[in-house]
Amino acid sequence: MVKSIEDQRVETDICIIGAGPVGMFAVFEAGLLKMRCHLIDALPQVGGQLSEIYPKKPIYDIPGYPDILAQDLVDKLEQQIAPFHPTATLGERVESLERLEDESFRLRTNEGTEVLSKVVVIAGGLGCFEPRKPPIENLEDYEGKGIDYIVKNPEKFRGKKLVLAGGGDTALDWTLYLSELADEVTLVHRGSSFRGAPDSAEKVVNLADQQKINLRLNANVTAIQGNGKLNACVITDKEKNSTMVDADYFIPLFGLSPKLGPIANWKLNLDRNAIVVNTEDYSTNVPGIYAIGDINTYPGKLKLILCGFHEAALMSHSAYRIVSGGKKASFKYTTVNGAPTL
Amino acid sequence: MVKSIEDQRVETDICIIGAGPVGMFAVFEAGLLKMRCHLIDALPQVGGQLSEIYPKKPIYDIPGYPDILAQDLVDKLEQQIAPFHPTATLGERVESLERLEDESFRLRTNEGTEVLSKVVVIAGGLGCFEPRKPPIENLEDYEGKGIDYIVKNPEKFRGKKLVLAGGGDTALDWTLYLSELADEVTLVHRGSSFRGAPDSAEKVVNLADQQKINLRLNANVTAIQGNGKLNACVITDKEKNSTMVDADYFIPLFGLSPKLGPIANWKLNLDRNAIVVNTEDYSTNVPGIYAIGDINTYPGKLKLILCGFHEAALMSHSAYRIVSGGKKASFKYTTVNGAPTL
Repeated sequence: MVKSIEDQRVETDICIIGAGPVGMFAVFEAGLLKMRCHLIDALPQVGGQLSEIYPKKPIYDIPGYPDILAQDLVDKLEQQIAPFHPTATLGERVESLERLEDESFRLRTNEGTEVLSKVVVIAGGLGCFEPRKPPIENLEDYEGKGIDYIVKNPEKFRGKKLVLAGGGDTALDWTLYLSELADEVTLVHRGSSFRGAPDSAEKVVNLADQQKINLRLNANVTAIQGNGKLNACVITDKEKNSTMVDADYFIPLFGLSPKLGPIANWKLNLDRNAIVVNTEDYSTNVPGIYAIGDINTYPGKLKLILCGFHEAALMSHSAYRIVSGGKKASFKYTTVNGAPTL
Repeated sequence: MVKSIEDQRVETDICIIGAGPVGMFAVFEAGLLKMRCHLIDALPQVGGQLSEIYPKKPIYDIPGYPDILAQDLVDKLEQQIAPFHPTATLGERVESLERLEDESFRLRTNEGTEVLSKVVVIAGGLGCFEPRKPPIENLEDYEGKGIDYIVKNPEKFRGKKLVLAGGGDTALDWTLYLSELADEVTLVHRGSSFRGAPDSAEKVVNLADQQKINLRLNANVTAIQGNGKLNACVITDKEKNSTMVDADYFIPLFGLSPKLGPIANWKLNLDRNAIVVNTEDYSTNVPGIYAIGDINTYPGKLKLILCGFHEAALMSHSAYRIVSGGKKASFKYTTVNGAPTL
């Protein structure tokens, strides 16, 4: 297990902000090049949103895993990086970043932990984001009382009446998954075409055809009601016709909007709150700072974990030149056959 | 199992040349976007060099697998793509490529199979390569009689005396692995620093320190001898001192040199026999032709399977626009709630 250390002062080669799957895999790639890594995450454990938000959700697009539960992937990654003994500061947020005279960095967290590092890698993922909320008047009154923006433990919804809203992969995937265990699932989507994977969309439509779920296209949830606890949603279509649907839970899945926090002040080039990187090595415009995973953007970017793995690999080879003072990655050994002559 | 079909004429969305792990994963990513794929490979089974050359070799750098045998990874990928029912022409080589009037392609194999496809993806990997051989006079006389350029089944070397040569990851990995089962392992490397992963290099050096292997740096195998069957190697150091080492097997692991075959005539931009691609979508200079995996090159390129997975994902989203006639990936459904109005 990657556990938080108590040290208030840490020195390392690479400080990785964000201990989700991509930040974790960066430890592995850096470790192959003999670089030490220190992870910082605001959450109390590694794994990012996989552990925090959907540990029990099956993931289907990790290469080589026809399916794997999110937490199981995190556990495997933890095993994979264990030989490199990464250290971590968990449950703390990075508050400031300072460039030192020798070009290295000093980071400070909200708890006063100080990390000195030659390279900084931002792997903040969706941890730097917050859920987008629909414009419904008394929404916040029912948060935690029938409104969830994330599905953390699907078992909670067993036998319940659910209204989900959204048209992306999250809405599609959870509709498919929850249709198996909920009493009733209604998916409300403001459009008639889905942004999510066509394959998932087709499966959702098939479930609707078989009347296993209710699919309400070109419609929105416009009001909610309850009595201390949510009990119904009002769904309004484009012709302004409204219907009321019983609901134990309303789960708006409209994605996340960025919340970069102090990172927004680091003079990094941003594009709609994502960090612009060079695809040669996923470096930012600030020398020594890299950004990998869902937090970055570049032409062709897809927000997939598997893409973050690739970004971590290329970043590590580039970071090696900084950490080693300009050398390319190679291992020099001098004591077996005398001094090297090459 | 992805089995070869007998059809002499195939029509598909994406024709993937090369059924190694990266070509296989491309089927998955394309499948998520509802595109059909057809695989062509000169080998009689899918899996590329993983199945053909080192099925029993453990791989350590597949994200989420602390270790996995090469063939097991292929089996998992096969399971992962099975829902998309890819077709395949195995045991045949692509001989020609022709652009048709509607901008699609016609490929022909050496056995006369014809594949019509909207997009062509070259995922030829190291299948388009051949082993680099050291300049030793009677080398070819002993090929198959004590000289192997690839380690296909390590069990063959149990209890034997081995001389390995090379300084890259392949030489380091096999030295580590074979040191466990061979009677004697000598690793000969012309330099004193290794090109392979520093972590592996350190492990090799530690084995040498413990006298579990013989490490001969700044040296080359300059001659071999035997009597119908190899029995010794002559190792010469930089001071021209030669020593003779008993050897049942000599395994030069100097990597592979490219052998593009007919692909070299397709007017693709090449850089030292790798295909130059755009990192936005891993497209080549020829519209409709992509190159992913070890066969391509771009700034920062690393020849890692995990990088090929990323390339397959971005390629698929770009190819979708060609296959679907310009649309971005989304799934439109029109019969549940009436005609779409968005």
